[in-house]
Amino acid sequence: MTETAAATAENEGLLQSAFVVEMVRQMRAIDPYGHYDSMSTTEILEPFILTKEKKREIPIIGDPDELVVARVKVFFNAISAMIESECGLMAVPLVNLTHEGFGRALITVGKLVVMDRTLRDVHRFGFPSLSKMKDEGDKILSIALGLIGEHSKVAGL
Amino acid sequence: MTETAAATAENEGLLQSAFVVEMVRQMRAIDPYGHYDSMSTTEILEPFILTKEKKREIPIIGDPDELVVARVKVFFNAISAMIESECGLMAVPLVNLTHEGFGRALITVGKLVVMDRTLRDVHRFGFPSLSKMKDEGDKILSIALGLIGEHSKVAGL
Repeated sequence: MTETAAATAENEGLLQSAFVVEMVRQMRAIDPYGHYDSMSTTEILEPFILTKEKKREIPIIGDPDELVVARVKVFFNAISAMIESECGLMAVPLVNLTHEGFGRALITVGKLVVMDRTLRDVHRFGFPSLSKMKDEGDKILSIALGLIGEHSKVAGL
Repeated sequence: MTETAAATAENEGLLQSAFVVEMVRQMRAIDPYGHYDSMSTTEILEPFILTKEKKREIPIIGDPDELVVARVKVFFNAISAMIESECGLMAVPLVNLTHEGFGRALITVGKLVVMDRTLRDVHRFGFPSLSKMKDEGDKILSIALGLIGEHSKVAGL
């Protein structure tokens, strides 16, 4: 197998992973006019990928536009949906941003806060690669599920 | 004692209650130019009081302006400060509103959600009287402290 073929095969697995599938589902959910209908998974998730070069082109200080805020919400919605499907309890995401792109993202299950993040420079929101994005999502998911297992009484409130 | 004197005495007690004192402190905190310096407690808290007659004058549908949103935050900040002074743990308020005045208000202590409210028609935010406002604040406070006592481990996370 050549290097490219190996990379493609790896990418295939990545694109079929539960988290990436959920991300695509969430992106399609905010697309009422069907702009994404003819697009592939990679194309739909392309705006989430911010390589170092691309990041450097974005000014350090800037206000996030609606599209990037929508993407931030998609990311945390996808994690919430994953939590929900894993533990059967409703997970509620909450993204609170100032117009300058600073704020807080929370996911609650019952009365338990399973994720609490400070958001900064949201206009530069993105991940170095698709697999890094999946890693980040999986990390938050596993911490959340750990907390729910430990404090199931509070999560069930 | 005449009726008015009794009412005044009652009001005095109300104005010196911990919750009302905290509300005034929070209102003064968002007053960088000192507009409230020469105002009495009753005058500072006057915008929170929305009698039935006053409420009727406000249209049912409307967007909340900055001032009313600031007052909503003051109310939940005051409750958070009370929780903090009662239990010694940091309470973090979070008010998330759409521009239409719908949203959610949360207070978290550690990983415990001690208050979770749906907000509606925020442009008509107010209480029938000062004592009703204090009752509401005290109710939220006692529920929150009950939850913290019951789930102190999660609140301490």
